[in-house]
Amino acid sequence: MRARVTVYPRPEILDPQGKAILQTLQRVGFESVRKVRAGKSFDLELDVEDRAQAQELLKGMCEKLLANTVVEDYSLELEPESAS
Amino acid sequence: MRARVTVYPRPEILDPQGKAILQTLQRVGFESVRKVRAGKSFDLELDVEDRAQAQELLKGMCEKLLANTVVEDYSLELEPESAS
Repeated sequence: MRARVTVYPRPEILDPQGKAILQTLQRVGFESVRKVRAGKSFDLELDVEDRAQAQELLKGMCEKLLANTVVEDYSLELEPESAS
Repeated sequence: MRARVTVYPRPEILDPQGKAILQTLQRVGFESVRKVRAGKSFDLELDVEDRAQAQELLKGMCEKLLANTVVEDYSLELEPESAS
């Protein structure tokens, strides 16, 4: 099963990387950008077929390694259910 | 208009960060992980209402700043069309 984990700084946490990107984008001509948040994305392949089990494992990986839940939020997406 | 840009190393490019994460996940007990790719995610707010124009702007930002297209692929998602 394939999955994607997305990790972003919590909304109340400053995001200096996003701010730097915003300022640079505006300086090089993209004045219509109003806001940028910078996060991380992980594509994973799991040797697991059960969706509930995959979800549980991914949650564990985020809590343990992929995200710092003190300052970051994560979201999980599993590949769409196949019509097999 | 809100948008998300996702940037990943091209499939043929080594991804040492993903590899390190894979090895660490397996070591701390997530043996069912088979593969990890590590990428970046950017959430943007644009002062633009036209979807085609937003798409064009985002493409420009990726080519110019957000991605290194020699070694990275990017993908764009615009917020779903509202039913207003």
